[in-house]
Amino acid sequence: MSSTRRQLHLNAFVMENGHHEAAWRHPESQPRQARSLAHYVRLAQTAERGKLDSLFLADGVALWGNVRYNSHNLFEPLTLLSALAGATEHIGLIATASTTYNEPYHLARKFASLDHLSGGRAGWNIVTSAGQDEARNFNLDKRPDHELRYERAAEFVEVAKKLWDSWEDGAALIDKDSGIYADDERIHRVDHVGKHFQVRGPLNTPRPVQGYPLLVQAGSSETGKDYAARHAEAVFTAQQTFAEGKAFYDDVKARLAQYGRTPDEVKILPGISPIIGRTEAEARQREAELNALITPEYGVKQLSNMLDHDISLYPLDGPLPEVGTHTEGAQSRFDLVTGLARRENLTIRQLIERLAGGRGHRVFAGTPTQIADQLEHWFTEGAADGFNIMPPTLPGGLDDFVDLVVPELQRRGLFRTEYTGSTLREHYGLARPANQHRAKEYAA
Amino acid sequence: MSSTRRQLHLNAFVMENGHHEAAWRHPESQPRQARSLAHYVRLAQTAERGKLDSLFLADGVALWGNVRYNSHNLFEPLTLLSALAGATEHIGLIATASTTYNEPYHLARKFASLDHLSGGRAGWNIVTSAGQDEARNFNLDKRPDHELRYERAAEFVEVAKKLWDSWEDGAALIDKDSGIYADDERIHRVDHVGKHFQVRGPLNTPRPVQGYPLLVQAGSSETGKDYAARHAEAVFTAQQTFAEGKAFYDDVKARLAQYGRTPDEVKILPGISPIIGRTEAEARQREAELNALITPEYGVKQLSNMLDHDISLYPLDGPLPEVGTHTEGAQSRFDLVTGLARRENLTIRQLIERLAGGRGHRVFAGTPTQIADQLEHWFTEGAADGFNIMPPTLPGGLDDFVDLVVPELQRRGLFRTEYTGSTLREHYGLARPANQHRAKEYAA
Repeated sequence: MSSTRRQLHLNAFVMENGHHEAAWRHPESQPRQARSLAHYVRLAQTAERGKLDSLFLADGVALWGNVRYNSHNLFEPLTLLSALAGATEHIGLIATASTTYNEPYHLARKFASLDHLSGGRAGWNIVTSAGQDEARNFNLDKRPDHELRYERAAEFVEVAKKLWDSWEDGAALIDKDSGIYADDERIHRVDHVGKHFQVRGPLNTPRPVQGYPLLVQAGSSETGKDYAARHAEAVFTAQQTFAEGKAFYDDVKARLAQYGRTPDEVKILPGISPIIGRTEAEARQREAELNALITPEYGVKQLSNMLDHDISLYPLDGPLPEVGTHTEGAQSRFDLVTGLARRENLTIRQLIERLAGGRGHRVFAGTPTQIADQLEHWFTEGAADGFNIMPPTLPGGLDDFVDLVVPELQRRGLFRTEYTGSTLREHYGLARPANQHRAKEYAA
Repeated sequence: MSSTRRQLHLNAFVMENGHHEAAWRHPESQPRQARSLAHYVRLAQTAERGKLDSLFLADGVALWGNVRYNSHNLFEPLTLLSALAGATEHIGLIATASTTYNEPYHLARKFASLDHLSGGRAGWNIVTSAGQDEARNFNLDKRPDHELRYERAAEFVEVAKKLWDSWEDGAALIDKDSGIYADDERIHRVDHVGKHFQVRGPLNTPRPVQGYPLLVQAGSSETGKDYAARHAEAVFTAQQTFAEGKAFYDDVKARLAQYGRTPDEVKILPGISPIIGRTEAEARQREAELNALITPEYGVKQLSNMLDHDISLYPLDGPLPEVGTHTEGAQSRFDLVTGLARRENLTIRQLIERLAGGRGHRVFAGTPTQIADQLEHWFTEGAADGFNIMPPTLPGGLDDFVDLVVPELQRRGLFRTEYTGSTLREHYGLARPANQHRAKEYAA
């Protein structure tokens, strides 16, 4: 095995009881125990045992309209991942945070803090908060339009980078003899004045270990893909078929050149929820068990949220009603769901079952070998640089992936057998960004 | 010793190298090692070994104008305390966060998350951000006026409490058989519409373990004392003399009745930086060692910030210039510093030395017995319910306090020998607040 052979990247996307919407009802689930720091420590340590690149937490800033029928995040990502930083040594820690309802100074500071706490393992999944309910928790009657949210997101990241760069590397001298703690000539104001933000700086903490935390993005609309090509270093995406995945991959990679970036600078990770059995029959049995626990009312609410239409007004066994082609919410998931329903002529009930496993992400039930075959196919044929692994149940689904699928990928030379770097950027093979301020010569 | 005997409460106020401004230059200090999670884990575990009530982190949302000459917070409090939650079992974790530059939904969520992560050990030191530099990091040219900041702070806490109460206790049923995860009839919108905030809610996490995190306040101006009497459950305050401390204590306690509160519902903790020696001479020698390491330029900058005037324009060995009596910044610290200078007729240089140990907080050098005497005097004579302990150096100053002073307080029956509760509120002897929504009968 050559040391330069391209290997895939694996992110563990975790949520309380797992990604299948009925996971908490499964006989193996312990949904009360899942509401504890200990549960997440176990998940993070399992992912680290499997040498995974990173652990990821989704988030929103409103109660998702589904808590009657499903578990939700008990913890907020930045606080939970900070707690996990001390319980792990290698794995990257990726938190979701909104650019629409935050201020850059706060987020730049908190991600810098997580990066310092973890020795360079912080990542930021940048979201623009598509939900109407989210706007109403932040002094607004309705969400800002799609294009405006992305415009703000672009300026937000620009300001955050300026803040992370406001301390040059090595500005902290900590020289007891002279009494100089930091070289304030190497700490710069930001003096940003833009359409959305006015920020003087500097940030009140030195540059993060990684320069910037790893920047992740998950919107797959046209605007989202363009945003990814400009700003993201890893992209999480929902792709149902290899053909769609390949098209998305080629599309995003092709957009990079216009921003002066090379294809290696962005890692594309489609989601997959692997339902693992010792035999294919066992895997399918497990999938059927989970689907039998679905509550249709929950699926209808979820579908209504995704499509920004009240689907409960229509018969479950009838077709999906006309919902148009455009949303000011999450456009790419809207397109995926309507496309799936039309292409396969699904009733609302059938559509809900198809979405129950991964909310639009691909679900694949099979043996460890079959799953490894799928990952290898997408990876070697140019549809993925790695995968966003979404275990249907937790902790069991992650245990199975780490114990059964990872060793198969390692045997094939497709995945690392030991961590070779110490930061999240190093795991993903991404460079530490240069500071915007030229490092000055300094005689220490 | 009676189990009902009133005992004092102790908070460990920690910052990187300690509270003396020259601490990082002291021969025993290891200022590079202090920039690590491991340093803070050690401090938290030491405070817990001493059975202290809580650990506290100050914060601001701008780079304090002094980084050339002194260390600063590498970590942001909510992320750092989340990391410490997993490394400790008993001690309370109090983070500073601003009501002027945050949104209630975010802070209510993060403090709820810290409270869930820590099993009910979160506290919030509510600050209104007096600095001009802070405003300039948040789209403003100047800070909002003192009264406006406090007005916003009052509405902010009102909204946060509504959000914490938006889930009734026990709303999460987690009933696998019926498929009902949470009783959404016991989860309420907030529908707050006020002068500063419009928030629909509900919060996207269940009610904190403690109901609300412990609410702490540290402003000691007239507005600050009134705010404390209405909202705070613990008050940190800087008081130079017993007479001042007693007057402050009586003043705040007397304000409680008009808000329907009893004196027991607010714990008042003056700050003290104890410089500990085996003999009084050793303690004084240690204080002199630290003062000899002061950098005057640093003290002038700190003083300029406190007084909102550029003191560097005046001779070090001359008197404090005329600075008026009013600031839109931190009024109580302004009064303390100008009062100290006028009363004792201090030059700028002398004033700087007096402030170097605790930025206006009381510094006391002595033996463990002498320090215990001081604490007992203030406590038994009605000037304190406990103390905000500000070690001059860290980790050594906290080790000494826990190893030498705490046992003396325990021998006198003034301090607990074991934790008797599990939450921060229980440590402080404060009740868990009732929910604003009457708990409904529910046949589970």
